[in-house]
Amino acid sequence: MRIAISGNTYQHEMLEHIERLLLALAARGVQLVAERAFDSYLRQQLPGLPPMRQCELENGVDAQAIMSIGGDGTFLRTAQAVCSQDIPIMGVNSGHLGYLTTADVKDTALIVEALTGGTYRIEHRSMLELGCDSAQALPPLPYALNEISIVRQETSSMIDVTVDIDGQPLTHFKGDGLLVCTPTGSTAYNLSVGGPIMEPTTRCFALSPISPHALTMRPIVVRDDAVLDITTRSRAPLYQVSLDGQCTVLKSGTSVRIARAPHTTGVIQLQGTNFAHTLRHKLMWGKDNR
Amino acid sequence: MRIAISGNTYQHEMLEHIERLLLALAARGVQLVAERAFDSYLRQQLPGLPPMRQCELENGVDAQAIMSIGGDGTFLRTAQAVCSQDIPIMGVNSGHLGYLTTADVKDTALIVEALTGGTYRIEHRSMLELGCDSAQALPPLPYALNEISIVRQETSSMIDVTVDIDGQPLTHFKGDGLLVCTPTGSTAYNLSVGGPIMEPTTRCFALSPISPHALTMRPIVVRDDAVLDITTRSRAPLYQVSLDGQCTVLKSGTSVRIARAPHTTGVIQLQGTNFAHTLRHKLMWGKDNR
Amino acid sequence: MRIAISGNTYQHEMLEHIERLLLALAARGVQLVAERAFDSYLRQQLPGLPPMRQCELENGVDAQAIMSIGGDGTFLRTAQAVCSQDIPIMGVNSGHLGYLTTADVKDTALIVEALTGGTYRIEHRSMLELGCDSAQALPPLPYALNEISIVRQETSSMIDVTVDIDGQPLTHFKGDGLLVCTPTGSTAYNLSVGGPIMEPTTRCFALSPISPHALTMRPIVVRDDAVLDITTRSRAPLYQVSLDGQCTVLKSGTSVRIARAPHTTGVIQLQGTNFAHTLRHKLMWGKDNR
Amino acid sequence: MRIAISGNTYQHEMLEHIERLLLALAARGVQLVAERAFDSYLRQQLPGLPPMRQCELENGVDAQAIMSIGGDGTFLRTAQAVCSQDIPIMGVNSGHLGYLTTADVKDTALIVEALTGGTYRIEHRSMLELGCDSAQALPPLPYALNEISIVRQETSSMIDVTVDIDGQPLTHFKGDGLLVCTPTGSTAYNLSVGGPIMEPTTRCFALSPISPHALTMRPIVVRDDAVLDITTRSRAPLYQVSLDGQCTVLKSGTSVRIARAPHTTGVIQLQGTNFAHTLRHKLMWGKDNR
Repeated sequence: MRIAISGNTYQHEMLEHIERLLLALAARGVQLVAERAFDSYLRQQLPGLPPMRQCELENGVDAQAIMSIGGDGTFLRTAQAVCSQDIPIMGVNSGHLGYLTTADVKDTALIVEALTGGTYRIEHRSMLELGCDSAQALPPLPYALNEISIVRQETSSMIDVTVDIDGQPLTHFKGDGLLVCTPTGSTAYNLSVGGPIMEPTTRCFALSPISPHALTMRPIVVRDDAVLDITTRSRAPLYQVSLDGQCTVLKSGTSVRIARAPHTTGVIQLQGTNFAHTLRHKLMWGKDNR
Repeated sequence: MRIAISGNTYQHEMLEHIERLLLALAARGVQLVAERAFDSYLRQQLPGLPPMRQCELENGVDAQAIMSIGGDGTFLRTAQAVCSQDIPIMGVNSGHLGYLTTADVKDTALIVEALTGGTYRIEHRSMLELGCDSAQALPPLPYALNEISIVRQETSSMIDVTVDIDGQPLTHFKGDGLLVCTPTGSTAYNLSVGGPIMEPTTRCFALSPISPHALTMRPIVVRDDAVLDITTRSRAPLYQVSLDGQCTVLKSGTSVRIARAPHTTGVIQLQGTNFAHTLRHKLMWGKDNR
Repeated sequence: MRIAISGNTYQHEMLEHIERLLLALAARGVQLVAERAFDSYLRQQLPGLPPMRQCELENGVDAQAIMSIGGDGTFLRTAQAVCSQDIPIMGVNSGHLGYLTTADVKDTALIVEALTGGTYRIEHRSMLELGCDSAQALPPLPYALNEISIVRQETSSMIDVTVDIDGQPLTHFKGDGLLVCTPTGSTAYNLSVGGPIMEPTTRCFALSPISPHALTMRPIVVRDDAVLDITTRSRAPLYQVSLDGQCTVLKSGTSVRIARAPHTTGVIQLQGTNFAHTLRHKLMWGKDNR
Repeated sequence: MRIAISGNTYQHEMLEHIERLLLALAARGVQLVAERAFDSYLRQQLPGLPPMRQCELENGVDAQAIMSIGGDGTFLRTAQAVCSQDIPIMGVNSGHLGYLTTADVKDTALIVEALTGGTYRIEHRSMLELGCDSAQALPPLPYALNEISIVRQETSSMIDVTVDIDGQPLTHFKGDGLLVCTPTGSTAYNLSVGGPIMEPTTRCFALSPISPHALTMRPIVVRDDAVLDITTRSRAPLYQVSLDGQCTVLKSGTSVRIARAPHTTGVIQLQGTNFAHTLRHKLMWGKDNR
């Protein structure tokens, strides 16, 4: 069995736990593949690591599953990089609370048992794809598991956002921006801007205005096969489009298209975890001290 | 062609428009059937009405379509009464702004052309069904097109609501109540309690807490094939369950089940109307005076 | 020194703690006065209680302070009853979390020291007064420490609320009702309906619509010397006005006036408690699991 | 009588109305003073302008009143520049809807009568002052009539905001930022981020979190004599502080102090305008199409 490893490179507090986890997997006969930067980072700190082949996630990962070691940022980057490759990802948390992670890096036995025994569940989560006529403006993998957000580039003037849905006018407003999110992303930035929480298996996207300057503007939930054409105008020459927090800058007036991506992300969930549990325990949804 | 008519009995200001509409339909050879109470009401005021057979909506309506003349309340009552009969309903507005109506009672020509020419679109809208072990407590047609709401019977103490989804715990909170709505109902009472707007063809329901006493409680969107089991506890002996505003009283501690109804309502839409248009023009969604 | 005691009559789980507290106060030479119903309730359960004179709160309480033993409901009732008598109230919690209580009934030593040593702070909290031309409709003590709410009497139709401020039109909307709250009440029912949290010493009231059916309606904060005239219309013949949860029924069309009461409530606060602490620890304001 | 004029320099569509207004004032014997840049802009386009002395607003304006010709941005800039000089400002709108403007540039007669006849009301609006130990980081006039906002400099990571009030801990949260606004600013950016509307004469400020990533975070209203110490931490090296939309960049970790400014802005209001009218007509507060 082969497992690929991705991770961020600022986790010195968790290094010994990472080492213990990787050694335990190797001891069970698992072949390890690590993304190049993460492997180099670990080897500088941990001379006793088991051997791992290096890879670049974007170039094709030859493994049955990927372990993303870090937080939600690492998970999102990994999902974007491998989304066309149909490999499930297990989020292993090594920092603060992660909403996308299913285990803690300290839970060595739990993780090793689940991966080697296959005692996990894969949830197929929809993703978003960003399109644009001036294609050179886009990142090479224009996919997002959480959200695509359109925000003003400068803080002093609002942007003017027009949205068409399936070729028909949907809405038009002024504000800081607009966010389109998947159910997975509904508890991320969408929650911050007041958008609705969506159960991960709903076939929907939410469009949530970001700081709209009108009492009348509210988020809306649409079918996930809707095609959204969004035109942004501004006094400023540029505006930003972010895919899961990774920024691209476009010219004011440029339209983008947001639709469901052709790929999904397979999110590995350990037994006993589910969405409601995550909501209650990580986000304190409905928590009450009485 | 046969058209059935339903309506409320307090529309004296619109009587002459109703008469003109019914005469115009009769003149085009349409056979009219009217619900008994509405027919009696109209005949008292309008001696020149065309002949109409009387019917009770619940007992089976022999017609190709139903015209609901009134506002949203009339439309909802009609939808509930005929939902198992697979007859589309056209909402004809004769009062204040109706969100479910597609034409105004004064638009005689438009309505006659659409009905006799078949130049309309039918949108199949999902409905909710209410279940309860003590079935005698329920109304005979326990269906709702907009929403089922669970609210406290007395104003002085909060109720305690526990929700399971598909047999798993979802949430628990204290407040005035809980509302479960369809996409159709998302712009009705759900909008008042801060729930999300959902495009009518999304396959979702929203659960929106009503005045929850906790900062942590927020609405959630779930798949429309989810089964919700809801238990309500209270200091008071009773609580209320409303189907589209029609109240039933249950004992505190009684659980109810809310799920998608086996029927849909066929909502007749005239050409040129769509959801975004209704949102913008009737609800002023996104409207801005600048 | 004389301390008056008020309390609710369903606290059997805390009886021994109440007894210990009262005995400890008596042992320090404090003369105790208890409201009649509470005294009778306690004597039935606790034969070893110290002697206490009986009183009715409304008829004048001869004491330096009042101890309200129970939860927020008991505190509010006590505050209403004695608000014209200028006696500070200490909230002693004997149930679930109380937002107005400053000590727990189990904290015998803390409470005894504070009361006998005078080591506490009194916060003077503004109250609301309800006026109405048909004065017989009003309760004899038409004051509220938390809020006055105006709500529909029946669940099936919205009420129509018009508000004038200082004789000028302020707003008009349809919904379940309107709530006017003090800063003290801003974390009570006001919080449930989405109204703003106000620091207790701000000189403001908030007007918060309850489930308004319009995207455009939002709460507003006004000066606490504003005079509000509120007219409520409804299809139903009656509507409800509640003072801190105590209900009165008025005829639709009757106007009421809400203004700052001539009295304040002196809320006793133990050292080390303050508003931000209560917000964070009792309401979990700003709490984050990360 | 002497009137000073400020204005922005992109109002070619309104040039003839501006010319007519200035000529009408001159014809009534009003001496005009104009800020240098605006005067130069107008003279390039309008050779027939009356003579106007030039001035810089910051250096002292010798006039009984200032006319700010433009929108809210122009008004805010003018208020900041002259706030220590105790000269009232009339907002004359020459673009889209302005919330701070009391007249339209086309209303020549109305404006001339009001200014020359003194038939207006002056509302004294509180302002905010920004303080910082590294004073060289601040703009020379660190005042704001609407709001001071603290926002992240980069879009990809949240900032961590800690607030003390009068030397005591108030709150701590993660998000896009924090906004502190005056009652005047409560309908500006504060409204976009979900903060409470406050009547202009309330003695309060609102603290509104900007896109906080926690269900538990909500705006709070505090007394306007509170002193707020705000510390911002971030993965990024810098964060932004904006005074009425004018940006300054500070190092992460730098604390700022926000308190009521020693000056107020005198806002000239024409007869018949008031706050509720502005709310209803410009912001559509409470507007309902039914």
